[in-house]
Amino acid sequence: MSIITLLTDFGLRDPYVAEMKAVILGISPDATIVDISHEVRKFDVRMGAFILEQAARYFPDGTVHVAVVDPGVGMERRPIVVETNRKLYVGPDNGLLMLSALKDDVRCIHKITNPSYMLEKVSRTFHGRDIFSCAAAHLANGVPPADFGPKIDNPVVPQFAQPRFFADEIIGEVIHIDGFGNVITNISLNDLGKMGIKEGGEITINLNGKMMKLRLCLAYGEVSTGDPLSIIGSSGFLEVAVNQGNAAQELNVETGDPVRVKVSR
Amino acid sequence: MSIITLLTDFGLRDPYVAEMKAVILGISPDATIVDISHEVRKFDVRMGAFILEQAARYFPDGTVHVAVVDPGVGMERRPIVVETNRKLYVGPDNGLLMLSALKDDVRCIHKITNPSYMLEKVSRTFHGRDIFSCAAAHLANGVPPADFGPKIDNPVVPQFAQPRFFADEIIGEVIHIDGFGNVITNISLNDLGKMGIKEGGEITINLNGKMMKLRLCLAYGEVSTGDPLSIIGSSGFLEVAVNQGNAAQELNVETGDPVRVKVSR
Amino acid sequence: MSIITLLTDFGLRDPYVAEMKAVILGISPDATIVDISHEVRKFDVRMGAFILEQAARYFPDGTVHVAVVDPGVGMERRPIVVETNRKLYVGPDNGLLMLSALKDDVRCIHKITNPSYMLEKVSRTFHGRDIFSCAAAHLANGVPPADFGPKIDNPVVPQFAQPRFFADEIIGEVIHIDGFGNVITNISLNDLGKMGIKEGGEITINLNGKMMKLRLCLAYGEVSTGDPLSIIGSSGFLEVAVNQGNAAQELNVETGDPVRVKVSR
Repeated sequence: MSIITLLTDFGLRDPYVAEMKAVILGISPDATIVDISHEVRKFDVRMGAFILEQAARYFPDGTVHVAVVDPGVGMERRPIVVETNRKLYVGPDNGLLMLSALKDDVRCIHKITNPSYMLEKVSRTFHGRDIFSCAAAHLANGVPPADFGPKIDNPVVPQFAQPRFFADEIIGEVIHIDGFGNVITNISLNDLGKMGIKEGGEITINLNGKMMKLRLCLAYGEVSTGDPLSIIGSSGFLEVAVNQGNAAQELNVETGDPVRVKVSR
Repeated sequence: MSIITLLTDFGLRDPYVAEMKAVILGISPDATIVDISHEVRKFDVRMGAFILEQAARYFPDGTVHVAVVDPGVGMERRPIVVETNRKLYVGPDNGLLMLSALKDDVRCIHKITNPSYMLEKVSRTFHGRDIFSCAAAHLANGVPPADFGPKIDNPVVPQFAQPRFFADEIIGEVIHIDGFGNVITNISLNDLGKMGIKEGGEITINLNGKMMKLRLCLAYGEVSTGDPLSIIGSSGFLEVAVNQGNAAQELNVETGDPVRVKVSR
Repeated sequence: MSIITLLTDFGLRDPYVAEMKAVILGISPDATIVDISHEVRKFDVRMGAFILEQAARYFPDGTVHVAVVDPGVGMERRPIVVETNRKLYVGPDNGLLMLSALKDDVRCIHKITNPSYMLEKVSRTFHGRDIFSCAAAHLANGVPPADFGPKIDNPVVPQFAQPRFFADEIIGEVIHIDGFGNVITNISLNDLGKMGIKEGGEITINLNGKMMKLRLCLAYGEVSTGDPLSIIGSSGFLEVAVNQGNAAQELNVETGDPVRVKVSR
């Protein structure tokens, strides 16, 4: 039994996601379809890439990941299949897939051109249904990636800012704010280690111009309810959170905001 | 393996949708349940009918569609099963099912009266759980529609306004606004063809009193980001959209608003 | 085929729910995963317990219910497996599971301590993924509860206010407001019967200081559109509703508000 996951910016109110599932089940009736998220901010390829990468690591080998955040649908951007040593990815060639795919060994990337693996009538507005879901179901049925079209070797790779290291601080940025209001940065525990910062210690964070001394906790509950903390979250990155509160709202932070971290002295 | 789809106005926060799925899986454990939408505007039978019809066309033959937007629950409106040459539908007899069912050949419609195919205790507030899900699971198990109750031949059919044709314009209306803010009308490409309008041409649209000359594009990206366009969307109907923007918000349009289309000269 | 249900306060936008499903399918590929709700108010254990209890009663015997509303994650609160005569429950020992589990006969409760049934690397921020989903999948595969860790006999049991009976009135409280705005109280039909109130009769309700004489209806449509009514809802409890309207908004009611019910004279 194959697993096919879906990630889009379509929301769940309209018929679009169901149309994708209908196409898949018509071709691969035994597929197990799992929604990763359909609440990616409209047209926000970076947010989609981040959520896909986070979730994909936990899926078993052989999973087919379909992702559609696709402002260029029907224009020049290529529809692609990516095969890694563990997984298959299907979607637009706009960077959405590659953040996750590149965490494994990418074996090959093919442009989807073979009409045998598309719906009979392909719109220029909804490739998620007419091309990507269709391709994913055929992949789940065992069609090899090479059958979908010509090999390509220049996929679009999303550029995420990397943290920069200075004498006494790391400068990074906010890459995601989750539904709890946790402020997730692009700074890892490993990055903090280079500054001599360890879990249990105290750090000084400058978040969007606001300076805070925060304990680098191991659990949200280590500070009192309503108090701010820093923590290596389930994503593996440094988060600023408020215990049982909403840090992003309370600190007025948005995705993309700069973060500066120092050892507290 | 049978597919059972669900469409409701229940939302996903409360236990109601899960209760329906629980009832189905208790009766038909191998059913594949697919959510079409649970975000239909409360009590909006027309919106539900539109979304169901859009999604249902992509589902394989043999699918059982359950739909529950049911302001008359527990009153005189009849619970029904509809059999077409391709599918089965279960829900209230208030028009919700028939927009979709009538796209295929309707073979028979039965009122659900047989208590063998209902939960033991039937509430008058939640037929989605106590009658419709239960019936759908039995249909998926192969129980013929005639076993559910007496045949009826006067179902409620939803009246959607049809576009009207005049010497130099078509007058239609907005039938749906999707999550992207795309303004979907009841005017098809075929309707536009009668006026000599083709994709690639330019049309004059009067939307809610606002007059616009718009290219009839093939892809959203044919105009600059933030610019309005018209397009035959994935629904097969004329849409007014803004490339990577929200047309409904920017143009202040709502479902039901009138749309007038002319050839641009 | 086993059913595993999920209830959380995670929302559906972030990768968290998908990560739980990925872990489950990696261990128990044939499990049927059903979402109960992911829209529980953040950290609201009582709301989660109520929704779980409502939905769980309809699931077949053998279902494994995972629930994660877990403000104490990573601190002292214990991760537990609860076995009843019908079902299995997995989640934090904070009361979330017990409202539902205690409706059946609880056979045993085990603290989860056995690392064989956890992810290799267990975070202190996301036990839903690293411990609970993992345990649920192993339970679905037939691992007995006793293998997860030592038996405990002092689980946290949520305290819900019980209605109080006086000479001529019942004093209860609002326990949930659903997506329709229906105001669900903790007063049952049986409770009303003790006051001589029957369906079809009239009651006087004091809701948050507002006094109303309302028919105790059997269906929402028994009053005119927009009019208030009282009814025993699908939850089995007394609700105040507005026919095709939103009672909670119109009456300005919140969860926890007091409700006083009298026989109308």
